[in-house]
Amino acid sequence: MESFLRGLKGRVVVESPPGLWREAKAVCSFIEERGLECVRSAMPSFGACLVFQDLGDAIVHLGHYPYPWWKPSKKTLFLPCPWKGEVRLHKIKSELEGKRTLVGTTAQHLESVKKVIDEMKAEGVNVELSFSTPRGLVLGCDYTGLRRGYDEYLIIAGGKFHSLGASLYLKRDVIAFDPYSERWERVNPYPILKRRLWKVSEAMEGREVAIIDGIEGQSRENLVKALFLEASRGGFKARLFKAPILTKEFVANVLEEVDFAVITSCPRLPLDDYGDLEKPVLAPGEARAVFRRNLELYSFPF
Amino acid sequence: MESFLRGLKGRVVVESPPGLWREAKAVCSFIEERGLECVRSAMPSFGACLVFQDLGDAIVHLGHYPYPWWKPSKKTLFLPCPWKGEVRLHKIKSELEGKRTLVGTTAQHLESVKKVIDEMKAEGVNVELSFSTPRGLVLGCDYTGLRRGYDEYLIIAGGKFHSLGASLYLKRDVIAFDPYSERWERVNPYPILKRRLWKVSEAMEGREVAIIDGIEGQSRENLVKALFLEASRGGFKARLFKAPILTKEFVANVLEEVDFAVITSCPRLPLDDYGDLEKPVLAPGEARAVFRRNLELYSFPF
Repeated sequence: MESFLRGLKGRVVVESPPGLWREAKAVCSFIEERGLECVRSAMPSFGACLVFQDLGDAIVHLGHYPYPWWKPSKKTLFLPCPWKGEVRLHKIKSELEGKRTLVGTTAQHLESVKKVIDEMKAEGVNVELSFSTPRGLVLGCDYTGLRRGYDEYLIIAGGKFHSLGASLYLKRDVIAFDPYSERWERVNPYPILKRRLWKVSEAMEGREVAIIDGIEGQSRENLVKALFLEASRGGFKARLFKAPILTKEFVANVLEEVDFAVITSCPRLPLDDYGDLEKPVLAPGEARAVFRRNLELYSFPF
Repeated sequence: MESFLRGLKGRVVVESPPGLWREAKAVCSFIEERGLECVRSAMPSFGACLVFQDLGDAIVHLGHYPYPWWKPSKKTLFLPCPWKGEVRLHKIKSELEGKRTLVGTTAQHLESVKKVIDEMKAEGVNVELSFSTPRGLVLGCDYTGLRRGYDEYLIIAGGKFHSLGASLYLKRDVIAFDPYSERWERVNPYPILKRRLWKVSEAMEGREVAIIDGIEGQSRENLVKALFLEASRGGFKARLFKAPILTKEFVANVLEEVDFAVITSCPRLPLDDYGDLEKPVLAPGEARAVFRRNLELYSFPF
């Protein structure tokens, strides 16, 4: 932090996920104490893919590792905010014994998870960290580190956001362990998969599709091109929309003139937020199944 | 439009207010027919002050005149979209006879209003266009063309958005004429003024204030500086937040750690959208009354 601030001029922006609001305030005070100007972003940040670079001259982004597929062009510090508690997996040990298990977790738990994984290995449990960079990390939109072929997949994260994504990606059950409550459960993708396949089938009946892309790390030009090609091969008319940030209201606006939408900026929005809109809103992998008119090709997220 | 597109390269962005969605689609088709790539903005546009310049290489912005206090740095065409109907003021003529009346209207009605004003003048009614650039135009955040000292103020616009703003700015009643329904009514600012003054009084009890600024034409750095100075003179601790776009959720987030907020990006948000939040959200002019602890200084919007 000190070395990042040294020599900086102008205004430093501090942005944070909603849960790190208090930490953002403290970081801003720290910056001001060093004689620099600080501005807070009033936008909650949901990932390192979206840094609003217009808000200042340098950025301190709290709580996420750098996004592997994009780098901000302004000087940016990704400041880890590890949870101070300890991830205690003892409750789940007997469930994993005698099986090969692959483990994924989020930025704030990674260090603590590494430690407990080492302990379990020393006790003879066959657990490994997922093959991401850094190893063990899962993102809401990237589960490719969860290689197939393991007996169990263990997702360590608050809530079910990441375990749900992982189970849809793998099309099988995963174990969700919440380090805050120390509760665990098996997450079965099939109830949700059924709903998603229904949306996909519904979209197949349509003719016009809006492809909604974003900016910065949520601008996926190559993916957009590929989807345009797939759409036209499948006989669909595609139109491109872009937005710095999406809300339900904006998506409802777009849906007024097409039969369904694909969101390329953030593939979690269709799954988590827009499932109850009147027309289907799909993630890129889901849209591919529509364009090829083949439910068997269903994939999430890409 | 033709001459704007000539020689353009890359991607043209079309952005529009929610009511011109259909026109935006037609404009996009027109652009594509001329061999250019077109992308629609998925953000509804509420004014010429906010053009999201990251979405493409040139911008066609529908329905607003250029914002007088800011110009986009990318090549931008502000395309008027006049309402095709006629503004018919005959119902209101007897109300205006024998009085000096100043008239303000919105971009889509300006040409038609000029015509009907000329007709009324020829019939001996003393009506004049407000002193804005172009003459006769009012913006949701700019009523300075409505000079004081007239007997009546006539605001010609759909709904009551502009007449409400004008009445609060003037602190007196105005006549709101809706060209769509051809209905008119007197808008009295006092019921709303009472609610706003209550918010202002409540904010005076606080100590910490968030000043929330925006980007592009909604970035008002000099105003922010002036408010910081006013706040510190009044014994308030101010913190700066910035956001490309605000939603109620984001504002509620900010309010978690301060006693009240001032929105400098768009002074209509406090009035029209955030009046029901638990803590006061104020326009810049309202905040000045707080910082100087003097209700008499109440002004809207700046």
